[in-house]
Amino acid sequence: MSQKPTHSDAEERLRDLGIELPRPPTPLGAYVEAAQTGSLLFLSGTLPLEDGIPKFVGRVGGDLSIEDGRCATRLAVLNALAAAREHLGSLNRVTRVVRLVVSLLTTPEFRQQPKVADAASELLSTVFGSERTSTRMVYGVASLPLGVCVIVELVLEVSM
Amino acid sequence: MSQKPTHSDAEERLRDLGIELPRPPTPLGAYVEAAQTGSLLFLSGTLPLEDGIPKFVGRVGGDLSIEDGRCATRLAVLNALAAAREHLGSLNRVTRVVRLVVSLLTTPEFRQQPKVADAASELLSTVFGSERTSTRMVYGVASLPLGVCVIVELVLEVSM
Amino acid sequence: MSQKPTHSDAEERLRDLGIELPRPPTPLGAYVEAAQTGSLLFLSGTLPLEDGIPKFVGRVGGDLSIEDGRCATRLAVLNALAAAREHLGSLNRVTRVVRLVVSLLTTPEFRQQPKVADAASELLSTVFGSERTSTRMVYGVASLPLGVCVIVELVLEVSM
Repeated sequence: MSQKPTHSDAEERLRDLGIELPRPPTPLGAYVEAAQTGSLLFLSGTLPLEDGIPKFVGRVGGDLSIEDGRCATRLAVLNALAAAREHLGSLNRVTRVVRLVVSLLTTPEFRQQPKVADAASELLSTVFGSERTSTRMVYGVASLPLGVCVIVELVLEVSM
Repeated sequence: MSQKPTHSDAEERLRDLGIELPRPPTPLGAYVEAAQTGSLLFLSGTLPLEDGIPKFVGRVGGDLSIEDGRCATRLAVLNALAAAREHLGSLNRVTRVVRLVVSLLTTPEFRQQPKVADAASELLSTVFGSERTSTRMVYGVASLPLGVCVIVELVLEVSM
Repeated sequence: MSQKPTHSDAEERLRDLGIELPRPPTPLGAYVEAAQTGSLLFLSGTLPLEDGIPKFVGRVGGDLSIEDGRCATRLAVLNALAAAREHLGSLNRVTRVVRLVVSLLTTPEFRQQPKVADAASELLSTVFGSERTSTRMVYGVASLPLGVCVIVELVLEVSM
């Protein structure tokens, strides 16, 4: 039932889709963006940054729409992929996306977190293939660094 | 100090307790309910669903009591176990519950998260045995999918 | 690119720094403070407790300052290290700090979570060495057990 550790063609897919990854995020403190232990690569939480500039500041369901939230989530995932590529050399070494956490800054009544988080899941499925799709955890948080509306966390299984 | 990977008799315990697991949850988007990497099984966040219907909508400490929160948490764990059984074939393959996260939708002043989360810990200890009990993380979140009051996340160690 | 599993001299560093770890936390329910699976040690969320007494009750950015938040976060990490030492016998067995999560109780507008979380990252870098520094996830939560302002979660890689 475990996934076979065959390489993905994520780099080719990104090229085909015309997606260019952003500049890899740099730590905002005394931590690292990626830590590998065995075949697991843990990534730091990533924000919707473009050239280091925070985008999509505000709350989904309030000043930000669901579509804004989706764009922000997609951008945060691209930052995570940039961090992963920097560590691994190539995203083709990713054999499975194990865990995706989407923590959204929302209004208290907001209930459509899955719709927003789908932007992350759809991107990951497209890039790595649906057979390498992750589990998912999504919830609303009370505040986020820089006031952005989303932070994304990934755990990847990688070939050694 | 590590746990011995001996099988549990979780399926027998569930039968003895008269607990029937709900229909396994189906993903609300492009993700999967369970992803195994080596001997670790990561599960998606699960909600208090009964036959796919969200139960216990509201905030613990507000419209929902501690007892409501406990019932909701127990139900969310049963959904997680249903997802795990679907992936593993049998819960007897669980050798250790490694990590339990209980994310509760509460009023801002609520401080009794552990009392609510105990409903999850007690169920897991009863089903898998106290020697396989998990670590725990519990906190209050700002909003949740479908407006339910809890989302539960499990990481399990399983025999191969 | 993976870290070499050489032992750290964390115990010596703690002595040099004059840091005494607090009494290890005891579970507030039917869970354990540490669960090892293979070479990964998962720890329960730890609070800023001193001799079992909760410190730093309130919200960072409101009744609590950034400096209060930093002291609380440092204290929560010391509690996590006490739990790890109790499980491992010695912190020198830690080969890598893999994952650090800092969940802060803040006011809604608070944006300086990284400044607070740095107190954890700096302590971990000092004790285990910057080559064993962790990834990091930080966000604001809506409520916490006992009303304290922070809960910290660690995943460690340990020698067998």
